[in-house]
Formats: sequence, structure tokens, C-alpha cells
Amino acid sequence: MDISSTFDNMDTGLTQDRPVQMSSFYKEIEPVDGAGNHDVVNNVTIPASGASDPRAQNSLQQSWEMNFQEAAIYLQEGENNDKFFTHPRSAHALSAYLFAHSHLFYVVELLTAVLLMLLSLSEAPAVPFLRLDVYVHATLELLALVMVAFELCMKLRWLGFHTFIRHKRTMVKTSVLFIQFIEAIVVLVRQTSHLRVTRALRPIFLVDCRYCGAVRRNLRQIFQSLPPFIDILLLLLFFMVIFAILGFCLFSANTADHYFSTLENSIVSLFVLLTTANFPDVMMPAYSKNRWSCIFFIVYLSIELYFIMNLLLAVVFDTFNGVEKMKFKSLLLHKRSAIEHAFQLLVSRQRPDGVSLKQFDGLMRFYHPRMTPRDRFLTFKALNHSGAPMLSLQDFYKFYEVIGLKWKARRSGEHWFDDLPRTALLIFKGINLLVKSKAFQYAMYLVVAVNGIWILVETNMLNDGISWTRVVPWSYIIFLTIYGIEVLLKITGLGPITYFSSGWNLFDFSVTVFAFLGLIALAFDMEPFYFIVVLRPLQLLRLFKIKQRYRNVLDTMFELFPRMASLGLTLIIFYYSFAIVGMEFFADVIYPNCCDNSTVAASYRQINVTTGNRTELQEGYYYLNNFNNILSSFVTLFELTVVNNWYITMEGVTSQTTHWSRLYFMTFYIVTMVVMTIIVAFILDAFVFRMNYSRKNREPLDDPEDEKGIVFETEVSQTEALQTLDFYKHTLGVTNLTSLQDMCVALERSGQTSLVFLGRRSRTKSDLSMKMYEEEIQEWYEEYSRTNLQTDGTFHRELDSPDAGATNSIN
Amino acid sequence: MDISSTFDNMDTGLTQDRPVQMSSFYKEIEPVDGAGNHDVVNNVTIPASGASDPRAQNSLQQSWEMNFQEAAIYLQEGENNDKFFTHPRSAHALSAYLFAHSHLFYVVELLTAVLLMLLSLSEAPAVPFLRLDVYVHATLELLALVMVAFELCMKLRWLGFHTFIRHKRTMVKTSVLFIQFIEAIVVLVRQTSHLRVTRALRPIFLVDCRYCGAVRRNLRQIFQSLPPFIDILLLLLFFMVIFAILGFCLFSANTADHYFSTLENSIVSLFVLLTTANFPDVMMPAYSKNRWSCIFFIVYLSIELYFIMNLLLAVVFDTFNGVEKMKFKSLLLHKRSAIEHAFQLLVSRQRPDGVSLKQFDGLMRFYHPRMTPRDRFLTFKALNHSGAPMLSLQDFYKFYEVIGLKWKARRSGEHWFDDLPRTALLIFKGINLLVKSKAFQYAMYLVVAVNGIWILVETNMLNDGISWTRVVPWSYIIFLTIYGIEVLLKITGLGPITYFSSGWNLFDFSVTVFAFLGLIALAFDMEPFYFIVVLRPLQLLRLFKIKQRYRNVLDTMFELFPRMASLGLTLIIFYYSFAIVGMEFFADVIYPNCCDNSTVAASYRQINVTTGNRTELQEGYYYLNNFNNILSSFVTLFELTVVNNWYITMEGVTSQTTHWSRLYFMTFYIVTMVVMTIIVAFILDAFVFRMNYSRKNREPLDDPEDEKGIVFETEVSQTEALQTLDFYKHTLGVTNLTSLQDMCVALERSGQTSLVFLGRRSRTKSDLSMKMYEEEIQEWYEEYSRTNLQTDGTFHRELDSPDAGATNSIN
Repeated sequence: MDISSTFDNMDTGLTQDRPVQMSSFYKEIEPVDGAGNHDVVNNVTIPASGASDPRAQNSLQQSWEMNFQEAAIYLQEGENNDKFFTHPRSAHALSAYLFAHSHLFYVVELLTAVLLMLLSLSEAPAVPFLRLDVYVHATLELLALVMVAFELCMKLRWLGFHTFIRHKRTMVKTSVLFIQFIEAIVVLVRQTSHLRVTRALRPIFLVDCRYCGAVRRNLRQIFQSLPPFIDILLLLLFFMVIFAILGFCLFSANTADHYFSTLENSIVSLFVLLTTANFPDVMMPAYSKNRWSCIFFIVYLSIELYFIMNLLLAVVFDTFNGVEKMKFKSLLLHKRSAIEHAFQLLVSRQRPDGVSLKQFDGLMRFYHPRMTPRDRFLTFKALNHSGAPMLSLQDFYKFYEVIGLKWKARRSGEHWFDDLPRTALLIFKGINLLVKSKAFQYAMYLVVAVNGIWILVETNMLNDGISWTRVVPWSYIIFLTIYGIEVLLKITGLGPITYFSSGWNLFDFSVTVFAFLGLIALAFDMEPFYFIVVLRPLQLLRLFKIKQRYRNVLDTMFELFPRMASLGLTLIIFYYSFAIVGMEFFADVIYPNCCDNSTVAASYRQINVTTGNRTELQEGYYYLNNFNNILSSFVTLFELTVVNNWYITMEGVTSQTTHWSRLYFMTFYIVTMVVMTIIVAFILDAFVFRMNYSRKNREPLDDPEDEKGIVFETEVSQTEALQTLDFYKHTLGVTNLTSLQDMCVALERSGQTSLVFLGRRSRTKSDLSMKMYEEEIQEWYEEYSRTNLQTDGTFHRELDSPDAGATNSIN
Repeated sequence: MDISSTFDNMDTGLTQDRPVQMSSFYKEIEPVDGAGNHDVVNNVTIPASGASDPRAQNSLQQSWEMNFQEAAIYLQEGENNDKFFTHPRSAHALSAYLFAHSHLFYVVELLTAVLLMLLSLSEAPAVPFLRLDVYVHATLELLALVMVAFELCMKLRWLGFHTFIRHKRTMVKTSVLFIQFIEAIVVLVRQTSHLRVTRALRPIFLVDCRYCGAVRRNLRQIFQSLPPFIDILLLLLFFMVIFAILGFCLFSANTADHYFSTLENSIVSLFVLLTTANFPDVMMPAYSKNRWSCIFFIVYLSIELYFIMNLLLAVVFDTFNGVEKMKFKSLLLHKRSAIEHAFQLLVSRQRPDGVSLKQFDGLMRFYHPRMTPRDRFLTFKALNHSGAPMLSLQDFYKFYEVIGLKWKARRSGEHWFDDLPRTALLIFKGINLLVKSKAFQYAMYLVVAVNGIWILVETNMLNDGISWTRVVPWSYIIFLTIYGIEVLLKITGLGPITYFSSGWNLFDFSVTVFAFLGLIALAFDMEPFYFIVVLRPLQLLRLFKIKQRYRNVLDTMFELFPRMASLGLTLIIFYYSFAIVGMEFFADVIYPNCCDNSTVAASYRQINVTTGNRTELQEGYYYLNNFNNILSSFVTLFELTVVNNWYITMEGVTSQTTHWSRLYFMTFYIVTMVVMTIIVAFILDAFVFRMNYSRKNREPLDDPEDEKGIVFETEVSQTEALQTLDFYKHTLGVTNLTSLQDMCVALERSGQTSLVFLGRRSRTKSDLSMKMYEEEIQEWYEEYSRTNLQTDGTFHRELDSPDAGATNSIN
């Protein structure tokens, strides 16, 4: 690479080069030429072309700054998968956009939404210790809603009225806000809560938050999987109805069989049987009368539970598979188009097919304001594959792969203690070798295994229940000492940075620290912390490091964790809505001995029963599964999710209200079935993808290369470093150049002519997909350029339109 | 194609051509040359080479016959996936082989095995109405075992002692037979059954049957999926133990909480919780004391049930996927190698790279003795792609694709009534157009829908249960008449053959016939047939034909049916073994009020309970879920498979026996979990494969082409037909030539010079796989020829060895 040429053209480029395309923000500021119309942006005349005129130069500088900012916004939109039709179009739209895309705004948005949801802890059927007066929580709600309204105003200002009313999610949010506002005022006026089922819509505010993008994606995926799901569900329900009619015809003659006494009972019984929750009880009356009647139930369960239910999973899995790929494709093409937009804004008239360091640096100042000049320079170099002084569009396409890299000079030494004096070095070297040896590792596994057996035996001998004593058992101290020594040895031997960069070591460390805290709790008799002692057996998890497959599984588990958490959050949002509806209709209908006229009376009974000559307290605990406040509702809904015995709760509530209540429970069952099927499909998909990936690339899953993630290398020579420093200091006029100066100093100190810098980031799902779909990606790109780049001028407008096909259909 | 040349060389080939390779059976008959050693088979000298010597020609003819037979056996082995090391090696091995591969032998084998299994209906804890005296069933058993011994002797004769003891499955069978034999004699001597747990091994005889190949494959697949399954299972159990210790520490202080009172209880509770069967009850005592204790259970279920259990499915699915592909590959290569073996035996010395019609015909007489000469000729022509007079090895590779074809001359007319007089033709033409019209179809859908609603409403109004009366409801007659007319119209309009070739029409027909039978049953008051009436709603299934997706799903359902049935049979085999063990240990331990000292006493109670001032019969039906005979055991095991409330049965039995009984139930749970996971993986795999197939080949799943299956076309000219007839009559000396004569007559009557014959068969999974893995198959072939055909002479021996790698590893 010809280094000097990179800087040569920059000096001239600074003063004379005009951008090919003007930012849409610019013309608003200087509408002198009457070129305020967005459509003629490419033909706008630059106010002045004389390089010597300082006013013209200033204006040129300003126009470049505008371009940098807009390019940065395009790239952000590409990264966040924001549709381009929400791109700000004017200067005051820009300020609103910048305000609505600051982290402060996001945090306030999130907090408001969370506050609104948390209010239900204190409203009408409140959690006892969180109860607030009506005027307090209604005022809080009004305040939060005003905040939401303010946020929406900012969005209106940024999007403009026309785009605003075309953006569906925002419109739904606005109307929900309107309703909530009126209701909150009504509550404040009447000083009492009315039947506020609309509170179930509150999660919409949360879902719309920037930080809840993952939840939005999950919801979209759920909705996309719905059509095939509903088809199979109808098949399922159809068989259910047919069997209900059959069952009614066959078993209604048996008076002891209340499960099939009417057609409605028959349908409800078979719906519950679909979940297996009333099996084998539902069969027993018929079975006791005629043994062959079991065939009816076996056939029903075989068809419904073992065939159609699995078909449901298969259909969802298949759709899910396709949707994941389509999503990846549309994201990829959206990013590509964002890069093209940005590139158009960065190239100058004189050099229309390249981006120079000056322009790249300008872009990065807006895109990543906290990036140091050194990193901006290194990123530029990492992008620059061809070795030309400018970045071509092909180079620039790699923008998103390079942008997240953390740069570091390649370490000369291997260990942290290489610079220490000789004696210390030898000691640490010894420790290092010790903790890296197989013998040490297996010795530790042995200790853990012995500890495990010890805990098991110890616990087994405490058959009369744990008695908390102040005496700390000596075994606890011994094992803890061993673990403590191990942690210390490892930290000193590997160095803290290497030690803590491994997930397993972090796990070891935290478990050991917790165990120490538990010891302290035991020693000082702090009762609330006893539970920490109980976490000791978690140490045993380390044993699973021994086998390859477990490492894979646990690694996959950690990789899946963020996505699982977002799925969990999605589930909680559904729970919230159902909990609100449940509380509005079923609060306080369940209490001990409430349901004596139902078939599930025994589960709610709390009485003394005389059985022969014994008297015992028969306690059915099911009155605890109620909708009396939102926390209880959540637990009740979790129990319904687990499905087992859910009909007891359903029948209990039904006996106290109307039999239409069953609709609530059945709907909830179907909704959770959808979400759970998606979760299963997701785990299946992720796992199979991972396995295929490692098979395709013939690399073991726990390849050390894999752990390091993505690595880029860039070599910087001494002259180049000095030139860059000079360029930043004089041409760009940057004042804070410590990072570049440090680089020069490091180069000098190393005594070599050049230094290699490594840029690292962790590997994402997107990187894996890139490799998996390598061949198809090329096809997608070709197809994309055929449709969008037929003539260079038109592609910009096509992508701007709100319904620009694949790119916008899924985001 | 040059027809005449096909026949030209046959006349000469018949008398002079000697086979390149001699059959291993031959040398045993004529060991004159001392060439009885198998290894020099290729160098064996043919007894006589003079074409004029009648004794020599006879011997040559005989040697060809032997070759045909051995080639047919190779091809059969390829088709049945029998390993080549069990190939018969001598003349008396051949006769034993032929005996052991006759359908009569297979049927006897199957019947013996079924009889042995059915015996448990009559043995010790017998089904009441099937009870037999000890000497009767013991004698029957001895007889059956003697039959099995005889079968094994035949196998020994065919395989030879050396191969016999190396064949694992046969050795296991022999030792089981030995044990059973001794036990049966002991029973007969003591005149009473002892603890015969070994009866649980009886299914081995069934599994070894030729007709149960699918079950064997399933079992193999289950065993192959086991290693990863067990790994994840250990992870699952490990977390269970950790949580059991935690749970014991946290909840054992609560005296009301018997679920966690000891470590053993704690482990059992959490094992049951893994199946969700005791949720939420297991949580309730802790939850009622401290509401936050629900977190323990939520975390446990989230990790175990929603994460690791799904991981289990993912791992099995992944393994399953790989195994299916490997199985297909090994089958494909095994068939290829069988074809090569056969080809070697069919080629003659004079023309060593082609199989002539004469030799092919000779092969087919052994391979498919019932095939007509016409079909043999057409099959030969279908194989012959190149147009050369002989089949090359490349042609011959397609053997298995062509062999199942059913040949039929292409019909000149479209409808069955085309040959009728004009008036009748017009009427039938009208009916044909009517039944094919959309209007007619939708009218019928409407009728079915109305009928469905009618049944629903009618049933709903019978809220006091069905009362069987002699009066047939008029609606029943009306709808049945409409269906009857529809069936008649369709049969006359489409012709019976076209009508019954569609699965949907068959379904319509049988439901309608059943409904008629039901009507007769109603009219004549035949009580046991009432259930037929109840099948009426099945007509509604027809509605699902309307939508494409349902057709796909239902088609896939039918396609999966054979495989599902074999999986069901596999499950039943497991059930059988567990039922035997269950009966031996738990027969008669369960009875009403048996378990009053257990925690599940209520479910077994059958007493009058006084609740306040009411007295009611509280009937817990669970005493019906017992192991008192094999049928009850099967129902009980099915209930355990469905999992819900399974712990009630477990605890009931445990309270009456020892707490080691739990091992039985837990093992059963894990075994069914394996089988069920395989079933889910199988359905997922089959469905996703089907969807991918249709996506890859861009054809809708219900393409009419697809329904027709595989079609081959062959054109036969008049001269060719006559030549073939002549060839068969004079050169081969075949006497029964009606099929060929019919062909010649049909050709003459049609007045055309040639006639096209269509060979059809239904499409199999293997055909789909062939298309799916098109590219990979080529690679496999290349790899295969590299390893096996390096020198032409060695490949034979390599494949013969019992451990010949991929080909034999999975069959």
C-alpha cells in the first residue's frame, strides 16, 4: 500500500472537493438558491466554488458536516433496521431525530413504560404492602402518560405528520395513549377504579421502546408463524369436536360419568384432555364400566397429542426456519442499501468513487463520537482492502463487520508477568505451568466430585430437616479453602485479564465468592442470607467441563441466553395482559371452601374430615392460585403455563363466576401453546444451526479460534503513524490526539519499523449466518443490484418509498 | 434402437457363452476339477468347452442357471439389506437359504413369535376369560419354542457354524431360546409358574422376524440416538439432584411439606416435577408459607422443563437427521454393490461387459418367479437406456428403480365409457362433467357442512343423554341418501378404477358404507353395532380437502402412517417387556382402599365420606390402574406414557411394596421419553424433509404428477413384439406365453406400428431422497468406487468380509 498517497490527496481534497450529493438538511439552512426542494438535491448548486473565498469555504465545510451527519444517520438506520421512509428530511426533523435517538431519551422512554406497567402493583386489587391511594397512582399514571405524549410529539416532529400517520405501530400507540389518558382522568375524578380492562394494553408502551427491539422481533416472528399454526389448530379442534360428539354418544348413558354428561362438558373434557391434565381421571368412570372404552381415549390421544400436536411443532419449526433466513436476508440487504446511501453522501465531485480518510473521519465523529482518532484511523485501514488511497464502495460494504472492533497492539509477551524481575517471574511461571497442567485440573475435578458426594451424604443424614446452627461444619471450611486457593493460584498464574475473560472462570469465581459470603453469614448468624450456603452444590457444575458435548451444550446455552431472555420477556408481556384481565374479572372470587358445588371442590377445601375413626385437616391449597393481585396472578398464570392440573383453577373460577370464564383459560392455554412452541422451535433451530455450522466448516465447536471471535489485523509503520498524527493535527485541527501520540510512542519504544494492531469482536449469529449462506448471499446481492441499481440515479428514491418490498417487509 | 441386434446375438450367446464368474453353488455339484475352494472361483475351469457336446452343453446350461439363482439372491440381499457375509456359500446352504427365505417360512416365524407373546394373556396373572391351565400353556410354549429351534437350525445350515456364531442377533436369540426352553420345562414339571421375568425377553423372537424389519430399524435408530440422549439426560438428572439438595435445605423445616421432608422424598418430588405431574401441588405447602418460594419452582421448571428437555429433543433430532442420511447412503451403496455382484455373475466370457435379454430373463425367473415374459421383456427394455443390444453396468445400476413397475399399455381413450354406444356415452359423459365440476364439489362441501352443524345442534339438544330408539331420525336418512347418490354418481362418472384409486374417494366410500350399516343396525335394533352410527361425524373430515395446507398435512399423515405404525409396534414391544416385569412384581397389590397409609390414599379410596351434613360415595378409581393381567398392564403403561398423574400409580404401588418399585416407574418414564422423543424427531424430520423437497423442486406438494408416482415409458414396435415372441418360444423354450401373445394381438388390433407401455409405481421415500441428495450421491458413488473398485478383482472380497465398513455398519 502506498501510504503517502493516502495523505497527499487529503490536503487538496479538504478545500476544493465538493460532495456529489448534498445532505437534505443543508438546503434548509441556506435556501438562497431556491433549491429547497428535496427532489433536485443532486443538482443543487454549491453556494460558492472559489477556494479562496473564506465564506464559501466555510459554507463548503458546513455542507460536508451536514453530509457526514446524514451519512452517519443512514448507517445507524441500517444498523438498527429502521425503515428509510422514517429518515429525517429537514433541519428541524434532524434535531428531533437526534433528540429521539439519544440514550437519555431511550432510558426515559423505558422507565416511563416500566412505571406504567408497575402501577398495576398498586392499583385496585393491589399487592398488600404496595397499596397506594387512588389519587396517588392516578396522578402517577397521568404523569407517565404525559411523558409518553411528549415522546410522541418529538416523534411527530421528526417524522412529519404524513409519515407519522402511516407508521402503524405509532398510530396504535397514539390511540392507546388517548384511551388511557381519558380513563386515568375518569379515575382521578371519580376517585375509584372502574373496570379497566384496557390496562391490558399497557405493554404496548414497553414494546415500542428502542431497548425492547428483541421483544418486537419475537412478537413479529410469533405473528408470522400464526397462519400455519392456526390452520393446524383448527384441525386439532375439529378432531376434538368430532370426538366430543362421539364421546357424548358413547358415554352419556353412564350417570356416574360427569365428564361426558352434556355436549359442552364433553368438549371441555376433551379440551382439557388435549393438555393431558385430566388423564386418566376422565377415562376412569367409562373404564370402570367397560374396559374396552379405553380405546376411545387411546385413539384420541394418539391422534391429537402424539400426532397433530407434533405436526404443530413441525409446521412452526418449518416456518420459523424460513422466517429466520428471510429476516437475515432482508437485514443484510437493508444494511447494504444504508451503506450505499451513506457512500453517496461521502464521495466528492472530484473523486466520485472513493471515500478519503478525511471524510471517513468526519463520518465517524458523528457515528461513534467516543472513538479515538487512532481507532478511526485503524478502522479506515482495516476497511481499505485494495490498498488504494480511498475506500471504494466494495471496501465500504464491509463497514458493519469492522465497526465494532476493539483495537489493541499485538502483545510482545505472552504472560502478564513477563516484565517482572527474574525471581518473581520464575515463581509466577511455575504457578502458570501448574494451573495449566492437566494434573491440576483433574485434581480439582476430583475435589469437586468428593465435595459433591460429601454434600449428598451429609444432606442425606440430616433426615429430620436442616437445623440452622452457628457451628460451621469443618468440611465446608476445608473445601472452601481449597476453592479459594485454586482461584488465587489461577488469578496469579494467568493474570486477572486472562482469568476473567473465560466464562467458566467467572462462574468458578462467583460461586466461590458466594460460598465465602455464605460462610460469613453462617458465622455471624445472619438469617436472611442462609440461602447462599445452599448454593454450594452449584460448584458441581464444573464437572461438566470434562466432556466435549457438555461444553458444547453449555456454550450453546450461554449463546442462546440473550435470545431466551427476550422470549421470556415476551412471555411476561402476555402474562401481564392476561393478569390484568384476570384481575378485573376474577379478583377475590377464590377463597378457602369457595367451590363446594363444583367437581374440584376437594382442591379448595380446608376442613376437618372424619375418615373412619381418624380426624385430619384436609387442606386443598388451590385457593392460593387466585387473581387477587398481579403477583398472585403471575404465579397462577405460570401454573397454567405448566398445564398440569390447570383445569382445577379453571373449574374453581368457573364455579364462582359464569361458564364463559372458561374462554379466558382456554385462550390463555392456546396463547401459551403458541409461545411455547416458538420457544421449542427456536431452541431446535439454534441448536441444529450450530451443529450444521460446525459440521459444514469442519471445526470443533469449542475451537479456540471460535472463542476469540472475529480478528482483523492491520500493520502500521512508523512513517505512517507520524504522517497520520501530522494530518490530524494540522489538516483536521483535532486537539485531543493522545491516542495517536501513544501509538507513535509505542512504535518508537518497540524499536521496530512497524507494529501490528489486532481488532477483535465476539462472533455474532450474523457472522455464522454469513458463512452458512455464503453462496446464497452472492445470489441475493446480484438480485438486489438488478432490481435497485438499474440506473444509478433511481435507486435512492426506490428505497425511500415506504413500501419498498423485501427490505421493509421484515425489520 | 436396433431391435434385431438384440436378438441376433442371443442365439449364439445361448450355446457358446460361458459365464465370466461361476456361481459358488456350482462347484459343489461338480467338484471334478478340484476347484471347490471359493477363493479361486474366478479361475475355475468350465467342465467342457465344446459347443457340440450335449453333456457339456447341459452342464453349461446348468452352470448358467446356478449363476442366475445366485445373482437373484445377491439382488434380494441388496433389496433386503442383508449383509453379504451371510450369503450362502454352497449347494446345501443354498437350499437352506431358499427355505428360510420363503414366504411360508416367514409367516410361520411370525406366527410362532406372536403366539409366544400372546401366551402371556393366558399365563399366571391371566386375563380372566382367557385363563388356561398350566400344562396347556406350557405345552403350547414348548411347541412354539421347538418351532423357533427348528428355524434356528435352518439358519445354522444356511449360514454355517462359523458365520452363525458371529451373527450377534442370532446368538442372542439362541441364548434367550435356551433359557426359555429350560424355564418352560420347569413350569411343566412343577405345574406352576415361578417368577418368570425372562418372559420379558420374548419380543426378541418377534423383532427377529423378517416381516418386522421396520421395528428392527427403529430399535437400531433408538440405540444410535442413545449416547447423546444419555449425556443430556445426565445433565438433567444432575440439575435435579442439585435442586433436590437445595429444596431439602429450604423447605424441610416446614413440617406441613411432606414433599421435601427427606432427601429421597425431595429427589422423587423433583423427578415427578420434571414430568409436571405433581405441579402445582408440590409447590403449595411451601408457597402458602412464603410466597417467594415459588421462585425455586419457576427456576427449576424453566431450566429443566423448558430448556434441557427441549435440548434433549434438539440433540435427538440432530442425531436422527444424520442417521437418516447415513442410512440412506449405506443402503444405496449396499444396493449398488449387490448389483455389481449380480452383474459379474450374469456376463458371459464372450461379451464381458453386457447382460443380454436371455440372461436377464433367466435372472428374473429366479428373482420374480411370477413375472410374465411380457413384463420381463418390458423391464429389460426400460433398463436399456443406451439402445445397445446388451445392458451395460450403468444400465444395470437402475435395476431397483425399474423392478417394481407395473406395466400397462397406454390407454387410447380417456374414460372407461368411451367404447359404449352413443346414448349411454352422452349420459356418462354428462355425469363425468358434473362430478368433475367445481359447483358439484362445493355443493357437496356445503351439504357436509350443513350436516356437521346439524349433528352438533342435534347432539347439543340431547342434553339428558342419548336414548337409543328404533326411530331413525329423518335427517339421518336425507343426508345419507345425498351421500349415497354422490358415491354412485362418482363411481359411474369416473369409472370404478379411477374412483377407487384416490385415497379421498376410498375414505368417502367407506364412511358412507359404514353409515348405511349403521342405518341397518338402527332399523333392526342390533345393539352392538350402534357405535357405527356414531362414526357419522367423520364425514366432516372431507371439508379439509378445500384448503391446500390440509391436503398436504393429511397426505403427509398418510405417507407417515406405515412408519408411525412400526414405531407404534416398537412402543408395544417395550410395553410388553415392562408389562411382564410389572405383572411379576406388582400383580394384585392394588385394590380399592389399598393405600391408606400413602400420600395418594384419596385416589384409591372407595368409601362413604361425611362432609358436614352430607354423605357421599367418594370413589377413587385408581385401583383400576393395576398390573393384574397383561391387558390392564398395557392400559396402565399407556397412562404412565401420557405422564399426567402417573405418580399416583407409582406411589400406590410403592406403598404396597418397597420403595425400590419407584425404579421400575422411573425407568419406564425414561424409556418412553426416549421413544417419544424419537417419534417427535421422526415427525419433525419427515415433515421438514417433505417441505424442503417440494421447495427445492418448486412443485406443489399435491401435484398430479406426484400422485401418479414414478412412470417409465417404453415403446414396442410390431416386429419387435413378434421377434420377442419367437425368441421366447424357440430359443428359451418357454411354454406359457399368453402375456406376449396378448401384446401382439393388442398391437395388431390397435392398427399402429408400435404401442407405448407405461410402467408405474408409487413414489417412495427413497425416490425423494434420491432427488434431495442428488449432488451428494454422485460424491458417494465416486468415493465408493475409489475404495472398492481399485482393482476389479478385489472388490468382491472386500465387500464379503463381515466388517466391511459403511455398507454393513447400518442396515
